Amino acid sequence: MKKFVNDPKQFVPEMLEGLALANPDTLRYVPEHNLIMRADSPRDDKVSVVQGSGSGHEPAHVMVVGTGMLDAACPGDVFAAPPMNYVYETAKLLATPKGVLLLVNNYTGDRMAFDMGREMAEAEGIKVEILTINDDVAVKDSTYTVGRRGVAGNFFVIKAVGAAAEQGADLDEVVRVGKKVNDVTRTMGVALTACTPPAKGSPLFELGADEIEMGVGIHGEPGRERKKLTNADAIVDELLDSVVGDLPYQSGDNVALMINGLGGTPISELYILYRRAHQQLAERGITVTRSYVNEYCTSLDMAGASLTLVRLDDEIDALLGAPAEVPVRVF
Amino acid sequence: MKKFVNDPKQFVPEMLEGLALANPDTLRYVPEHNLIMRADSPRDDKVSVVQGSGSGHEPAHVMVVGTGMLDAACPGDVFAAPPMNYVYETAKLLATPKGVLLLVNNYTGDRMAFDMGREMAEAEGIKVEILTINDDVAVKDSTYTVGRRGVAGNFFVIKAVGAAAEQGADLDEVVRVGKKVNDVTRTMGVALTACTPPAKGSPLFELGADEIEMGVGIHGEPGRERKKLTNADAIVDELLDSVVGDLPYQSGDNVALMINGLGGTPISELYILYRRAHQQLAERGITVTRSYVNEYCTSLDMAGASLTLVRLDDEIDALLGAPAEVPVRVF
Repeated sequence: MKKFVNDPKQFVPEMLEGLALANPDTLRYVPEHNLIMRADSPRDDKVSVVQGSGSGHEPAHVMVVGTGMLDAACPGDVFAAPPMNYVYETAKLLATPKGVLLLVNNYTGDRMAFDMGREMAEAEGIKVEILTINDDVAVKDSTYTVGRRGVAGNFFVIKAVGAAAEQGADLDEVVRVGKKVNDVTRTMGVALTACTPPAKGSPLFELGADEIEMGVGIHGEPGRERKKLTNADAIVDELLDSVVGDLPYQSGDNVALMINGLGGTPISELYILYRRAHQQLAERGITVTRSYVNEYCTSLDMAGASLTLVRLDDEIDALLGAPAEVPVRVF
Repeated sequence: MKKFVNDPKQFVPEMLEGLALANPDTLRYVPEHNLIMRADSPRDDKVSVVQGSGSGHEPAHVMVVGTGMLDAACPGDVFAAPPMNYVYETAKLLATPKGVLLLVNNYTGDRMAFDMGREMAEAEGIKVEILTINDDVAVKDSTYTVGRRGVAGNFFVIKAVGAAAEQGADLDEVVRVGKKVNDVTRTMGVALTACTPPAKGSPLFELGADEIEMGVGIHGEPGRERKKLTNADAIVDELLDSVVGDLPYQSGDNVALMINGLGGTPISELYILYRRAHQQLAERGITVTRSYVNEYCTSLDMAGASLTLVRLDDEIDALLGAPAEVPVRVF
């Protein structure tokens, strides 16, 4: 295993400590519960928005805690749901009169932890709602999921509900916005290589030198098909066919297009994918008015990418364009 | 080779086309000269700031073209300097009454192209200055360099001169600012794996399963020492000793600290490196007041990282904090 790591058991805490040291004015790290929260949360005048999931998907979700985004993230260990009591403690710490919204990518382990954490919080009178994200069109049920998986499209749900919460929307309204965005968001991913969890020390699965996993999940779990590596344009066309056909997105639609790197793929290659996707959408009469090309939801060091579309209307467009701050700096 | 690529010869043009498609309002792509420029440049009221270098280092430099950053970037092919006539054409297109500043990372091929491009531009009466960046402490002369190499620290020169130019500074003043930042900036990198140029199709060099290249250059060229992989903290300590001891940075200094990913390393690991660097600087009485943890200057898909320090004073701090816009989106 060639990684920058000390004790693999300390991979997540050391990452979180680094994140907090780099953002002393804006973030607070609560080591007892593996929790990263905004220094100015909770605020009585807004719904607190929280997401948790296994670690290893950074910048999701600990690095999108900030103004107009998440109030807190409570990650588990690498590719492991957070314990239910961490979810509970997070809800307690973030409780406000307007309530707490827990965002959960649809993975069975995460849902269980969040459902139970929510029950524990409600037993203490905290107002809590859960919103489940399930944007992955690759497979219906999967290794770790009943129903569709929640993957990189969750970024758009976070951005929209974060903006709505910042504007003072109440809990029902924030939930409505989040469901609305989830309903028009679709994603599919592809892996060129496996990823290596630090505690395992070896690749999580085997992929031949000329093979790709089409429809891969963000933990390397199988997708639709193991197939031969083809060129970038052919890969985009297959992802796009699946994603566009699912909602379906139609001629006349305005969309946000995200090309998300899975961790080991450089941004140069992501723009080669973006190019083809943008062109092919134009051919279908679908206009890209918002573009996202970067790493948003990764799978450790996996080489690969996912493609996400969001159908925009004026409300969603305004929420995606609202001001935000995240700890990841580009300048 | 497992990459998202079509024809390897079209790797750079397709990336640039994708970049332009994703930023139709702010960027302009000039395919004849491999050029990415701001849609609102040149502006008569400011110095135009341009950087070129081989491609394969993205987001440097084509993805830092934007307000308060570069006016244009003229990249070569992967790991190849731009042709001198591209530099010349870029200077012509970006010419303003206040002049053009060409930033060059110190690599011999790039310097040659930029020196000649400048001469051609000056012969047409265009006011041009060149500023060379040489922040890499790893080696004095190297495979492709006389003197020190210019690597990720060039980000800070771009940011500072970009801000000064935006504020209307004249060419001499912009050069003064750039030299000042370069003089207090030091970097050293380490590779865990080699990188694979698309046209070559195989790794650029060999690195054993338990080996790292300490002091690696951004094209995979040798650094100080091929050695056994150690843990993250030990790697940071070695990088930090070299960087801190070089200027030297001293107790009482305020610094910007950058942990730059080389392309194949996920951001989670970068924060583990950041943590140790921040702590060890504090032990030396050096205070980190600006933090940069992300990919800034990569080497294709190389797993690895570099560590950069900038000694801050009020002037540099204000320039680094000035408003800017880049095409790479984090929200």
